[in-house]
This record gives sequence, structure tokens and C-alpha cells, in this order.
Amino acid sequence: MSAEAKTEGKDELTKKKLIDIIGEFYGQLQSERVPYLNLPTRTKANIEYNDASEVWVYGDRESVRSAKTVRGAYQLLKTSYVVDFLNAQLDQAKSSTLRELYYISENWDLAKFREQQESDRLIEDLEIVSELQRENFHIRPEEDGASVLGPIKIKEQTRRGTKIIHCQDDVGEGGYQIPNNVDNLEFLEHDAKMIIAIETGGMKDRLIENGFDEKFNTIIVHLKGQPARSTRRLLKRMNEELKIPVVVFTDGDPWSYRIFASVAYGAIKSAHLSEYMATPAAQFIGIRPSDIVNYELPTDKLSDQDIRALHSMLSDPRFESEFWQSEINLQLELNKKSEQQSLAKYGLDYVTDTYLPERLSEMGVI
Amino acid sequence: MSAEAKTEGKDELTKKKLIDIIGEFYGQLQSERVPYLNLPTRTKANIEYNDASEVWVYGDRESVRSAKTVRGAYQLLKTSYVVDFLNAQLDQAKSSTLRELYYISENWDLAKFREQQESDRLIEDLEIVSELQRENFHIRPEEDGASVLGPIKIKEQTRRGTKIIHCQDDVGEGGYQIPNNVDNLEFLEHDAKMIIAIETGGMKDRLIENGFDEKFNTIIVHLKGQPARSTRRLLKRMNEELKIPVVVFTDGDPWSYRIFASVAYGAIKSAHLSEYMATPAAQFIGIRPSDIVNYELPTDKLSDQDIRALHSMLSDPRFESEFWQSEINLQLELNKKSEQQSLAKYGLDYVTDTYLPERLSEMGVI
Repeated sequence: MSAEAKTEGKDELTKKKLIDIIGEFYGQLQSERVPYLNLPTRTKANIEYNDASEVWVYGDRESVRSAKTVRGAYQLLKTSYVVDFLNAQLDQAKSSTLRELYYISENWDLAKFREQQESDRLIEDLEIVSELQRENFHIRPEEDGASVLGPIKIKEQTRRGTKIIHCQDDVGEGGYQIPNNVDNLEFLEHDAKMIIAIETGGMKDRLIENGFDEKFNTIIVHLKGQPARSTRRLLKRMNEELKIPVVVFTDGDPWSYRIFASVAYGAIKSAHLSEYMATPAAQFIGIRPSDIVNYELPTDKLSDQDIRALHSMLSDPRFESEFWQSEINLQLELNKKSEQQSLAKYGLDYVTDTYLPERLSEMGVI
Repeated sequence: MSAEAKTEGKDELTKKKLIDIIGEFYGQLQSERVPYLNLPTRTKANIEYNDASEVWVYGDRESVRSAKTVRGAYQLLKTSYVVDFLNAQLDQAKSSTLRELYYISENWDLAKFREQQESDRLIEDLEIVSELQRENFHIRPEEDGASVLGPIKIKEQTRRGTKIIHCQDDVGEGGYQIPNNVDNLEFLEHDAKMIIAIETGGMKDRLIENGFDEKFNTIIVHLKGQPARSTRRLLKRMNEELKIPVVVFTDGDPWSYRIFASVAYGAIKSAHLSEYMATPAAQFIGIRPSDIVNYELPTDKLSDQDIRALHSMLSDPRFESEFWQSEINLQLELNKKSEQQSLAKYGLDYVTDTYLPERLSEMGVI
């Protein structure tokens, strides 16, 4: 089956699932019940570990959205309008951003969104109920711009036909730009032994300049801070389809550990997508609080937010392992944080000649 | 002369200019003068319009940095250390980020930087004194990731040889990623009638999805908010070398007008780079305050910072034209701002079918 046909088939399925949601309301009304929608409660208390998929997903707690209240009635009305819009969009093979959707609602009279947060949230609800992802609805993210460089040839299905791109030979120094919908990609031959996902652009460029991708047959993926969905989805697909390890290299502060967690376990606010986007096999390289001591890294003092974030991580199920508990406690003790680029204290090549090879062999990756 | 040779020649010239700065100190010491360095004062009061280059540059006000004071002596010491580091970096054909430079200084004893701001500033001073750009020093930005999509074939000189990339045919939907040093690019054949620089990723993707680049033979450049130096340099080079107009499309708020100004006139804090990075011929499409009225766009209320920013723009020499003065005053009157994507109120194709064609023909671009 051609890639185009595959996409079309996907769109048909998506439309059916969306319309079924509205069909439910219809059925409820016909059987003289007040329309309602069941959704899982989205709190830290309601995410649990799924042994099968090895990721954190929502538990059994549900909240009901019913037309019995005015607020609930409005939400169901807006849901119907959004499904109608998405259905038309899929028919026309168009796509739109979350922000455009918000503005589109300007003309929906009573169903107009008061703020974008509201429409964003409704799209998430539709993802949960339909068990699809917003990419299936053709809803695009605002930004992405993360990039890949490494020994792999990718086949991308674009609106302008199929492109085949080798992520070392056919790209400039900026690398291959990750598209919004990674499910339009197919991985052709590759020569990679691992994938390294890096938080900062400076460190990504350092590895590229030092030829780390060639020396260690590594696919270098730039996370650009908290990674976009497309970046996380790409990491998951590469890890599972190419069967090569994914390691994550970030700064040594709580926000960076959360970046790792969102790659490995998924995010709490989008636990419904964990099985689609999380890479449970991903391993954390560092910067680790213990590195601050062992490598005598330049540091900054923890801010009050840092300390609060570290404390809340101690009770985050995603960080309950012995490794994380001891590292987090050590960091609170040290009251310090370090950035990846602080390794430059030992020169520009230290990270690629010493730190990473040492750590990766410790971890048994190389 | 081959591109490699050209690069090498540039590096030699850069080293010479940097070492000459230290040579000055040496000469001053030999002739028994206390070492000093003259720098232009970098304030709004000291930027003036240069008729020849049509950009805003520093005026004649100078401040002297002399070893007569302890603070001045330290600055000259740090300057010497940085020049030494840059010289070695150029010898080894390496590059580094501003942040790495800051961390490298960890081992410079008395010349160690207290904060990155200090080392960033020193690099800017070296740019001014040497009349070069930090790209010549091989100092990389932290981030870039802006992209290009359009009917142009680019030849990029990379560390891994020469790549030839057509920015429509040889790239995925993410487009061609702009490298850190745009002066390693050469423009081969192209079929473009204009270049449109766009602030938000959502709007960039909208134009690409709607095939604006093909329909109007347009090179679409993503600014990603306040554009990186590489993006501004690319716009300037394309405008001058391809001799096609550059238009800038942003949100309708003071921060976005400053994005336009930094593309067209350069930024105050880097006026020494204006002639290198500014595109005086760039024209502003909108969103204009008058568009808020004429197109009845969805709006937000101006924040206090917005209002302060608009007031300070009224006295900014870059906004002294009648057009800007009246638009800024209108916006203060309306007390409203609009985003580019608010045009979606009229549907997803309105911006490419109506708004842009109307405005571009008004402006005489198409």
C-alpha cells in the first residue's frame, strides 16, 4: 500500500472515531438521557505504571462532563463544533495549529473559546476519548525546529511527494529538520549503534563539530529544551524500529531531569500519549549531581524554584528509583547545579574524548 | 579560489586583526604609556543613520578602557586571554559557543569571568575593535534552528565537504536548516521573486501548507521570534546578492515591530554589526495596528510593558518615519494588539488568498 493511501486510510479512521463521539451524544439524547462524556482525571495521583508498555498512564479515576450543568453543556457544544471543524479539515487534507483553531472559533457564537488554553485542553480531551493523537486530527504544533544528524537514511512523505534524505550526507551543518508529523517518516538503511538526545544547541553542535556521530556511529538528536512531541515520537520510533539504545544528555538541574522523564516516561499532563511518545528504554547520561562532585564542575546555586522542583520530584512516581532518589537528595545537599557545557572547563574536546566515552561504557552502551 | 582556501584566508586575517589589538597594548607599554582601549559608547543616544549604508551605526562618542583603574586593568587582562584562546581555536579550525568560552575561563585565574554577560560583552567589544564578527572568531550562537523553504539552490561549505541543497526539492517539510555561519553558503540558481520572513512557526507552516512559496515564487524564511544573527545575515545576503525584495510578516505588537527593526535597521546593542546584518530594503507587511481596525481582527488588550515599549519606540530613531509614528499612536489609542494567526478568523486560506496578496500588491512587491 502506498504511503499516500496509508495516510488517507488513517484520516478516514480518524474521522469515524471523531464522529462516533458526537454519535454518543446523539444516542444519549435519543434514549432521553442528558448528554455526557467520561474522561480520566488528569492528576499526579491518577497516573500509574503500566507493566505491559513500561510507561506511566492514567489510572481508573474518571470525571464526568455532563450537560446537566451550563458549563458542561457549553463544553459538549464546543466539542461538537471542534469535531465538525476537524472533520472538514481532514476532508480537505488541510492542517492547522492549536492557535488557529482558537481563532477559528471566533465565528462559533456560543461555542467561541474564551482563551486558547480552553481549546488546547479540548483537543487533549479528544485525544483521550478517541485514543488518537492530535497529529491524526492534523493539528500542528506552534514550533518545532529540532534537528537530527547521524548515519541514517530517512524517507519522508511530504505534501510535495516523497523525499529521501541521508541525515549526514544530504544535509547541511544544521542537520535534518524534524517535521511536525513524524509518522510520515520511514527509516531506510542506517549504520547507527546508539541515539544520543541532547538538551542544548551548544552541546549538540559540540558533538557534531567533534565528529561524535561518525566516531561512535551515533544519531544525534537535538531536544531543544523540553522536547516537542514530534521529537519524542521520533526517538520512540527509532528506538523500537531500529532496536538501538537511546541515551539522554542534559544539564544537571531539575528542569533537565524532567526533560529526561518526558522522553523516557512521558509527561503527566499527557499521560494518555505515553504509549505513543515515551521511550521507556531511554537512559540518563547526565549531568548528574554526583558528576558535580566527581568532575569538580563549575556550578550555580540552586534557586528556590529549583529546590521546590527537586522536592516535588522526590514524590513523583517517575523518579522513585534508588538512583534518582539518591541523586536528587545529593543535589539538595550540595545546593548546586551544573550545565552540560560546564565540562568545557577541561577544554572543548573533554566531553567527547573523556566524559561521554567513560559514562557510556559504564552504562554498557559502548 | 576554493571555498576551503577562502575560509583559511579569512581565518588568517582574523588572527592578525586580533593579535594586533594585543600588539597595541604592547606598544603602549613599550612607549611607557598605561595600556588602554577605545570603544564607542553603546547607547541609543550614540547611534546615528549612515547614509551610505542606510543603516544605524554608532556615533563618535567613545569610552576609554584603561589599565589606570583596577577594573580596566582586569578587562585588558581578560581581553588578552580571550584573544589567546580565539587564536588557538582558529589555529585548530575549531569553534565554540559563548557559554563554552565563559566556562573555559574557569582556569584563567585572575582573568576568570564572574558571569557569562561579561564574556559575551567582551566578544562584542572585540567585534567592534577588530571590525569583524564573532562568526569570524568561530564563536557559535547557543541556538538557531530557523529554516528556509523556497525555490533556491544553496551550496553549503561544511566540515564534511560541500553540500548542494535545493530548498524545496532536497528538504523535508521542515525545510532547510540555516547553519550557524551563513558566510559558508553560496547561492546557486534560484527562481524567487521575493523573500518573506515570518515571525511564528504556525504562520510559516501555514504558508508552506498553502503552497505560497510555489504560487508566488517566494523564499519563506522563519524568523522564530527575535531572529538569530545567522538568519538576519542570510536575509541581507539574499536581498543584496539575489536582488529580490525582503518583506517581514510578524504579529501586531511592539516586540514584533522590534523584530522587523532588527532585520531592517539592526539592533541598538549590536549597531556595530548593522552593515553586516541589516537589510535596509526590508519592508514591513504587518500585522499593522490599522489592520486591527480594517480587518476587524481578534485582539488582546495591551499590557503595561506593551504600552511602555510603544512609548519608547516613539523616540527610537529607527521608528521616526511618519508611517511608524502614526501606526504606533493608533495602537496606543486602540489599546489593542493582534497576532498573525488571528487572520484565521476568516478561515485557514484567508492569509494566503487575500491578506498577503492584497498587501503585497499595495506595496508594489507583486
